[in-house]
Amino acid sequence: MAACTVYSTQSLKTNCFISTPSSKTHYGFHHKQIVLYTTSKRHNKRVNNPYVITCAASDSQTVVIGLAADSGCGKSTFMRRLTSVFGGTAEPPRGGNPDSNTLISDTTTVICLDDYHSLDRTGRKEKGVTALDPRANDFDLMYEQVKAIKDGVSVQKPIYNHVTGLLDPPELIKPPKILVIEGLHPMYDARVRDLLDFSIYLDISNEVKFAWKIQRDMAERGHSLESIKASIEARKPDFDAYIDPQKQYADAVIEVLPTELIPDDNEGKILRVRLIQKEGVKNFSPVYLFDDGSTISWIPCGRKLTCSYPGIKFAYGPDAYFGNEVSIVEMDGQFDRLDELIYVESHLSNLSSKFYGEVTQQMLKHADFPGSNNGTGLFQTIVGLKIRELYEQIVASRSESPVKAAKA
Amino acid sequence: MAACTVYSTQSLKTNCFISTPSSKTHYGFHHKQIVLYTTSKRHNKRVNNPYVITCAASDSQTVVIGLAADSGCGKSTFMRRLTSVFGGTAEPPRGGNPDSNTLISDTTTVICLDDYHSLDRTGRKEKGVTALDPRANDFDLMYEQVKAIKDGVSVQKPIYNHVTGLLDPPELIKPPKILVIEGLHPMYDARVRDLLDFSIYLDISNEVKFAWKIQRDMAERGHSLESIKASIEARKPDFDAYIDPQKQYADAVIEVLPTELIPDDNEGKILRVRLIQKEGVKNFSPVYLFDDGSTISWIPCGRKLTCSYPGIKFAYGPDAYFGNEVSIVEMDGQFDRLDELIYVESHLSNLSSKFYGEVTQQMLKHADFPGSNNGTGLFQTIVGLKIRELYEQIVASRSESPVKAAKA
Repeated sequence: MAACTVYSTQSLKTNCFISTPSSKTHYGFHHKQIVLYTTSKRHNKRVNNPYVITCAASDSQTVVIGLAADSGCGKSTFMRRLTSVFGGTAEPPRGGNPDSNTLISDTTTVICLDDYHSLDRTGRKEKGVTALDPRANDFDLMYEQVKAIKDGVSVQKPIYNHVTGLLDPPELIKPPKILVIEGLHPMYDARVRDLLDFSIYLDISNEVKFAWKIQRDMAERGHSLESIKASIEARKPDFDAYIDPQKQYADAVIEVLPTELIPDDNEGKILRVRLIQKEGVKNFSPVYLFDDGSTISWIPCGRKLTCSYPGIKFAYGPDAYFGNEVSIVEMDGQFDRLDELIYVESHLSNLSSKFYGEVTQQMLKHADFPGSNNGTGLFQTIVGLKIRELYEQIVASRSESPVKAAKA
Repeated sequence: MAACTVYSTQSLKTNCFISTPSSKTHYGFHHKQIVLYTTSKRHNKRVNNPYVITCAASDSQTVVIGLAADSGCGKSTFMRRLTSVFGGTAEPPRGGNPDSNTLISDTTTVICLDDYHSLDRTGRKEKGVTALDPRANDFDLMYEQVKAIKDGVSVQKPIYNHVTGLLDPPELIKPPKILVIEGLHPMYDARVRDLLDFSIYLDISNEVKFAWKIQRDMAERGHSLESIKASIEARKPDFDAYIDPQKQYADAVIEVLPTELIPDDNEGKILRVRLIQKEGVKNFSPVYLFDDGSTISWIPCGRKLTCSYPGIKFAYGPDAYFGNEVSIVEMDGQFDRLDELIYVESHLSNLSSKFYGEVTQQMLKHADFPGSNNGTGLFQTIVGLKIRELYEQIVASRSESPVKAAKA
């Protein structure tokens, strides 16, 4: 049976929203009356307070960034680099669920899209679907809440508890300056995708993924080689069907491949990393090497800079990626010394840094993070600077637009 | 029988010389007396006046440049580019032998080393030696006269008449600012080599040489393919023995190879040209691409510059060449339009040009010269600018050195 209530919406602004007991969010009122209803079937225990009407404090929109990658592929490192670029440290919400997946800093809130799992671990087992399967995720709720936050409205976001495998009671997410949604499916649903001001896909090649898993699961957790292979194989069909295709929508892809500097290397320690940057994205101007738009390869190790074996090699050039025009910067090899990093930074153009050496400074600050000596750390840092610039340009264009309108 | 005369040399400066009837030159007197002698056997009809004592007008030395290449390999085009860089036009000596091989401009005199053939065409036939063979050339005289000119002293240089194949009466060569000795053997004799302030070797690969000969001798002169092949084959042993080894001594080598942009190209129309620049040469600082001392490849044709098939590709990097440290700039492909040339010029560093676009201006000025649309013309022009700079630095260091000595 449905419980119905009729409100007058005369005084409600368009950036107000009403949360219902089912955590479904309805907002943007264009009618004078609305009807809120729940059915007893959809009633669940996540939400204790039944109906909440919330309105945004200001007109400033949140900038929304999407980051897609498989689990264990360095999303959290990336997030720590990104929030560091903005100057604060990212921490879980104070006084909340200790198993919250959210990270909050002065400017940025990072939410994990696992929180939008519609099936918990047991539920997935029963239905025989993996967490990669869209049927295990609630894209309607994801869309509604990301849209609400983007419009400046707080939401009660569910929590998926990675420890227990259960859906915990929701936590309040207030609209930050920058919202990062990271997880398996930030670009899977077209409605969510359209909300993104910038999107990134971390694309770890199978060879590297395998080498990393062996390193972690065999060396550190005592798993057998066979079980690691089996777990990767089991995951692959859904990964290929639902996760991998998202990279075609990304504004930037960080592709991690085995080195080509050492013939037949399968250690996965030295990496070839490519930053694939979509052209024509608003407020995003790709990094380049020496000559914008041409095709370059560059071995900086030579007369001025000496490097240890196997050295460092860069490449840059225009290309096509899923039918889109892109510019690709590639780094193969790793930094062994500080002067190598500074040398490389000084020869990259359009880095969006605020001072000479900012990339090097960021990399040194987090020298203990994985990938700080290779292209993953370098390109994550650069993407961080790019997002900062994108954010600042969006803010600047908002404050300029009334002036422009007045002039026109 | 020797005819002897004794002179007192008390009043002779070290930059005086005495020419004898045999055209042998003796100069640089350190003894108080000298004996001039000729034997009747060596007496020949070239020189009409028996003994001439000449002294240099000033202390300014001539800068001497050596240019080595096989015949028909573009030496004369190179020379015209070089003299053009210095601002004048190069012409044969006025009122002299119309078959003179010499070119004179305001600053530069170019002499052809064929003039030092000791055997004329008949003589070579009789002895069974080619013009490439050192035995057909008088290196003593070459050395003495180049040294005399370098010391500021005029000489009576023989003329080899390419039309008749005979040795014509000599012509007077006055010391210019820059003397270019071009021909088959400028770096063959160690004494001559040591006189060179800068040396260049034009190294045309056999494939290109063959394609050029076919173009010229078959299409224009009606020779058969077999006769062209036979003439190249006949020439090859002496070329390999006496000419080719000189490139190890060159400060700059311009190497002309078939393109690598078109697989299996044997037309010889599109060229891959390499400028091999020796490191550590006084007053010569190699051209580079983007980052001095690193290894680069660059395809300028891309987003900003579009080129027709097969495009243009550059490479740059440090290397070793006959055990010497060198920097190599390479251009494969050809310019089809002016904007391509300007674009390339604007991205090359250390060109020694005096204003932006000087290389392009020089190339356009001589658009009708062979190679004006490819790396041969580009690198010949650049080497011209380098020689101008070298000359200016030598002149500057001479005028500065007394000041430096006074300061020390």
